[in-house]
Amino acid sequence: MTLKDIGEFGFIEKISRGCFIRSQNILKAIGDDAAAFTTKADEVILITTDMLVERVHFLRNTTSGFNLGYKSLAVNLSDIAAMGGTAKEAFVSIAIPEACPLEYLEDLYRGIKSLAAEFDINILGGDTTGSKTDLIINISVVGAVPEKEILYRHTAQPGDIIFSTGCLGDSRAGLQLILNKTVADSEELKALFNAHILPWPYLEEGRFLAHQGGVHAAIDVSDGLSSDLGHIIRESNAGARLYAEKIPVSKNLQKFCTRFDADPLEYALGGGEDYMLLCTISPDKADSVARDYLKKFGQPIYPIGEITDSGETELVFPDGRIKSVAPSGWNHFKIPASRLLFVH
Amino acid sequence: MTLKDIGEFGFIEKISRGCFIRSQNILKAIGDDAAAFTTKADEVILITTDMLVERVHFLRNTTSGFNLGYKSLAVNLSDIAAMGGTAKEAFVSIAIPEACPLEYLEDLYRGIKSLAAEFDINILGGDTTGSKTDLIINISVVGAVPEKEILYRHTAQPGDIIFSTGCLGDSRAGLQLILNKTVADSEELKALFNAHILPWPYLEEGRFLAHQGGVHAAIDVSDGLSSDLGHIIRESNAGARLYAEKIPVSKNLQKFCTRFDADPLEYALGGGEDYMLLCTISPDKADSVARDYLKKFGQPIYPIGEITDSGETELVFPDGRIKSVAPSGWNHFKIPASRLLFVH
Repeated sequence: MTLKDIGEFGFIEKISRGCFIRSQNILKAIGDDAAAFTTKADEVILITTDMLVERVHFLRNTTSGFNLGYKSLAVNLSDIAAMGGTAKEAFVSIAIPEACPLEYLEDLYRGIKSLAAEFDINILGGDTTGSKTDLIINISVVGAVPEKEILYRHTAQPGDIIFSTGCLGDSRAGLQLILNKTVADSEELKALFNAHILPWPYLEEGRFLAHQGGVHAAIDVSDGLSSDLGHIIRESNAGARLYAEKIPVSKNLQKFCTRFDADPLEYALGGGEDYMLLCTISPDKADSVARDYLKKFGQPIYPIGEITDSGETELVFPDGRIKSVAPSGWNHFKIPASRLLFVH
Repeated sequence: MTLKDIGEFGFIEKISRGCFIRSQNILKAIGDDAAAFTTKADEVILITTDMLVERVHFLRNTTSGFNLGYKSLAVNLSDIAAMGGTAKEAFVSIAIPEACPLEYLEDLYRGIKSLAAEFDINILGGDTTGSKTDLIINISVVGAVPEKEILYRHTAQPGDIIFSTGCLGDSRAGLQLILNKTVADSEELKALFNAHILPWPYLEEGRFLAHQGGVHAAIDVSDGLSSDLGHIIRESNAGARLYAEKIPVSKNLQKFCTRFDADPLEYALGGGEDYMLLCTISPDKADSVARDYLKKFGQPIYPIGEITDSGETELVFPDGRIKSVAPSGWNHFKIPASRLLFVH
């Protein structure tokens, strides 16, 4: 069954079920010219948006509808997390090729709704339309944050300790497995695969960090550690020093690198889509924030270096060698076609 | 020159110029994980979003970049107008085929920015990415409206007078000209052509109407009078009676219909994309609102019928005949392919 069989309004009716899960502050959800809602008086509104395009970001025959829907929302939630906010409302635009099976689309919305429900997020609107060739999804997410707690990119200060909320490089390894059509024949490979296709948005963690005094700047790792840290130092007019042995790498990635003769550090620095948060914390607060974070989430945040005033990112090796690190992350228009298949 | 030559960040830098034109209430525009802004305490936030897809909504070789950008924003502004709101911030996501000339894209952003500037709207963010075949644009617009003045679809009341802010059917005629590759050899045909490609969003008019007492419901004519009025009566659990001779038809459309042997009433009822506002006004306020509207805008609003409790739309002809009107507007998945080329 395809959309032609039930029409645009039949489809909208079908997918609208389960979109509206929190009525507080909502005056109008799906069903009018625009959605209408209020925010609290002291809150700032955050808005982010991401577009995923078939044959650029995913292949329909290797990506389930559920995973595609999940990830389309997850990447937006990660942006709200990186601002220290709470995600509130989502808007889903979709362009659907004529032959796309209805089952795939329903599965896609299940993926979106399942993640939305985890964080009490409404789907308040969107647009459904046709497409000649490719399936396209654009999701916009509205969040809220107290004005004094917004985490920007441009507010890192020399001396700040740089932290990551988790291990880096797993997603890049998972992508590699997909590209090479490697069968995930072990728990390790499955975990890497999942790091790529079902990334977890660090919303609660971002909110927690934003609420602590002394957290100066944050970004999510979507393009890769070197690239995203590059955004922070460029916007903050600063520099950074990273310690190679401190950059957290999972056991799964280590095993992967042993098996496929690869360098974990390269994956951690250059691989994108980990969706960990990078944040910079004032040195006098770093220990206490890290301790409180561990207590709250049962997981550590990892200190990986510090903000400097050098204007560049240096990588310090255990033997004392220092290497300058250029941003090596994602650029949609300057990358080899082979990387254009699944990522970002 | 294409995007490959300047890269994603080069492109973003290029198009970011002129996006940020109003700093009031804005904490962060383009350049962080999300945009951040505040609204006034007593205001409701409105959000709408629309996606335009190449070969479905437009053909790149017959639609200039400027017109495409203008219309992509205009259709969203019209939705904010139909809620009685003021448009504030826009977010532009775009997926760009590799071979798309940079000049076309710059022209597209000129179209967006030109209309945005008319209404003091910031472009606060978006996403730029690649596409294999088609150019895709998704724009989301944030608006604001005082809570007591929101114009919904579901609040029409039997007895209300139905008004249109302008003539109907011109856009459909303009589309016909484009589809038939008719040369616009007269001022009349040019006006119809422009009604289709450069529709004017009735933002100031919608705001004015919302602020008057007695305006109960509103919608913009995107799918066609019969279809959009159908939304109002279905959501309001009401009916409608239209008077054929009162439905405003431009002289341009009349001349077009004489020349091409067509029925203006059919164009007015079934043609979409006029982006006039339909509103329903309490009978005791209708005259004064219409008078004040004329005084303010120098243009009339046209009474075309009234809300009933019949559950359907009836069309009354001057000779007393009554015809039931079924919604005949746009459905993205059930229409002939020939209509899929430019519209909505």
